Amino acid sequence: MANYTIIEGGVTAPLGYMACGVCAGIKVDALDLALVVSEKQAVVAGMFTTNAVQAAPVKVCKSVLESGRASAVVINSGCANACTGSAGVVAAESMATETAKALGVAADDVFVCSTGTIGKTLPLDKISAALPDAVKSLSCDGGDVAAKAIMTTDTVSKQCAVELEIGGVTVRVGGMAKGVGMIEPNLATMLAFITTDATVEQSALQACLAGAVSKSFNRITVDGDQSTNDSVLLFANGASGSELLNESHPDWKAFADAVEHVALVLAKKMIKDGEGATKFVTITVKGAVTADDANKAAKAVANSMLCKTAWFGGDPNWGRVIAAIGYSQAQVDPELIDIAFDDLMAVVDGQMAENVSFEKLEEVFKKKAFEIVIDLKLGNVEETVYTCDCSYEYVKINATYMT
Amino acid sequence: MANYTIIEGGVTAPLGYMACGVCAGIKVDALDLALVVSEKQAVVAGMFTTNAVQAAPVKVCKSVLESGRASAVVINSGCANACTGSAGVVAAESMATETAKALGVAADDVFVCSTGTIGKTLPLDKISAALPDAVKSLSCDGGDVAAKAIMTTDTVSKQCAVELEIGGVTVRVGGMAKGVGMIEPNLATMLAFITTDATVEQSALQACLAGAVSKSFNRITVDGDQSTNDSVLLFANGASGSELLNESHPDWKAFADAVEHVALVLAKKMIKDGEGATKFVTITVKGAVTADDANKAAKAVANSMLCKTAWFGGDPNWGRVIAAIGYSQAQVDPELIDIAFDDLMAVVDGQMAENVSFEKLEEVFKKKAFEIVIDLKLGNVEETVYTCDCSYEYVKINATYMT
Repeated sequence: MANYTIIEGGVTAPLGYMACGVCAGIKVDALDLALVVSEKQAVVAGMFTTNAVQAAPVKVCKSVLESGRASAVVINSGCANACTGSAGVVAAESMATETAKALGVAADDVFVCSTGTIGKTLPLDKISAALPDAVKSLSCDGGDVAAKAIMTTDTVSKQCAVELEIGGVTVRVGGMAKGVGMIEPNLATMLAFITTDATVEQSALQACLAGAVSKSFNRITVDGDQSTNDSVLLFANGASGSELLNESHPDWKAFADAVEHVALVLAKKMIKDGEGATKFVTITVKGAVTADDANKAAKAVANSMLCKTAWFGGDPNWGRVIAAIGYSQAQVDPELIDIAFDDLMAVVDGQMAENVSFEKLEEVFKKKAFEIVIDLKLGNVEETVYTCDCSYEYVKINATYMT
Repeated sequence: MANYTIIEGGVTAPLGYMACGVCAGIKVDALDLALVVSEKQAVVAGMFTTNAVQAAPVKVCKSVLESGRASAVVINSGCANACTGSAGVVAAESMATETAKALGVAADDVFVCSTGTIGKTLPLDKISAALPDAVKSLSCDGGDVAAKAIMTTDTVSKQCAVELEIGGVTVRVGGMAKGVGMIEPNLATMLAFITTDATVEQSALQACLAGAVSKSFNRITVDGDQSTNDSVLLFANGASGSELLNESHPDWKAFADAVEHVALVLAKKMIKDGEGATKFVTITVKGAVTADDANKAAKAVANSMLCKTAWFGGDPNWGRVIAAIGYSQAQVDPELIDIAFDDLMAVVDGQMAENVSFEKLEEVFKKKAFEIVIDLKLGNVEETVYTCDCSYEYVKINATYMT
């Protein structure tokens, strides 16, 4: 049972954080510059894209993360500052330095994130010009507008916050994210920011983030593509006055669960806003020998274009599901595989179940959200992946989005 | 320079082969049963899907291949006989046995291939009933009708044949194939049959097939999905009276080149007939350290939904190409990568080339066929992959094809 309560808000729900979103003119007449600032320097954790092609701001963030502490993050949408060479790194560093100056903190105290078109030069002059206004508009309820300012082709902003008790003290965890392809490299893509007013040791915070990401942002896929800009940052500023948390604190699991919840809700919101998505599909693989096997099988199904188009068409096509499991490289015995769609067993021991009703299967596939449960019947490990279908609209969005 | 000449025809172009295609009633009013028969027992080579879920006929083919010799292959379309359990294997064996009986050859002398819907029971009675007519209609120019009888959602039949001299004797190589998703597991998919009247040692023939497949069928991708039924068979019956070929024969390379040409032409025909495809895209990665790196990078680009939809939309989006290279797991230095579209250099050292004309780039992307040349500038290895774009039509075909 969860030890946290879901509350309104996002990154400014926890104590001691301010945020804002302003129009810097990078996009045309739209919010495109956000700040999230901790009133005092916070302990921070971060995770970044594993793509070999990494955007300039990712390089700067990795360097900022080395100290394990930071006060703020500045984020622009409309330009990814990726594939921009050493000039791009200088621009990202300048964006951090100028933000630090405007906030009155040290230069290496500010993370910088960018999302938008790859290959375009960062319009640093516009960002510099907008920074004074941005700093002035920082507020304790600025989380909403900040969540809007980081959007690209997102159709809705994505926030989540929870509250829990740590040693009798109320602690909050809040977050915001953007991304509508899991990864849409032209709009170089997924960014997520999580804040907490808990007091946490840095190494524990990084472990907490790694655990939460492995169960959330690493469990979603829209199209299998992977961005040059993906970044997830977690700030813990201790403003709640809670006891110092680490893995040996009795409330550690409750805290880690709360962070994971916020990450998972944000991740699911990205899938629900997935480009062209009409259906939310949960794929659970159980009976696997290892977690790696379970994930491989689930991801192969989640990324199969043939499965995704069948879901869009409402076609209860189990042949495509079992074929994807077969090529997933997971350890499987084809003659043991069971597949259920919601509660309907469609495949038993690798063959169509007897007396399965095609009409009832079709009803499941007409739903806006359904689950596919695959039992490999080889071991005891279970993993879940979240994805969406692939519609005409996905092709349209990505065919007509001009460089 | 090629030592072979392109000629008309397919599997019956070489001497000593007969083929036919008939309507067995598996599909409604369409050719759905084909035979390819060598007048005398041939030396054979075969390669099969690496999917863990393998159709019953694949299991039977592997067993037939053990002797390295066979006289015929019987192929049905309309039912894949995949995910049909032990009953499916019995049905595939019966299909081979009954064909052997009708042809008057040994039961283990006949390969059996199926393509069509997964999970459906093979209608063996219909096949048995049609076999006498099929055997009666075998002819030395039956290659055309056989190529039609193996089609599923293919819109055109796919054949190729070449002629060359081996030790002064004219030898022919012919082939036919079907498959319009590289792999479309519901129409469980790619089948290719190549015949030659050359005289070839079995181990050399298998090596020749492996080499040809690695440069042809393994270099194409429509959607990255992988079938349960993929099979490629190569028959060499010696009917030309040519000298015995093996790797040490002076004409070996000429023969291997001819087989590779037939395989590559058939493979490219599958891509051109790819589901919903409007563009044929050749992706060459050069300057790689290893062939594996070059292939990983090329395949990542070829299978990227974001690249494929951009090609469909005519969008010269190089950011999506470089992002796919980045996550391909190939050894790359992002700051060295060059990318050209046909002869236009768009990216130099990982950044947009100076003075690149967006209008000229758009012209390339409007063409029905173009090449993307990626230079990793790390080594000397070059590999090429062939693919197509992803259109609304792909989604439509796969969303509306009902199980």
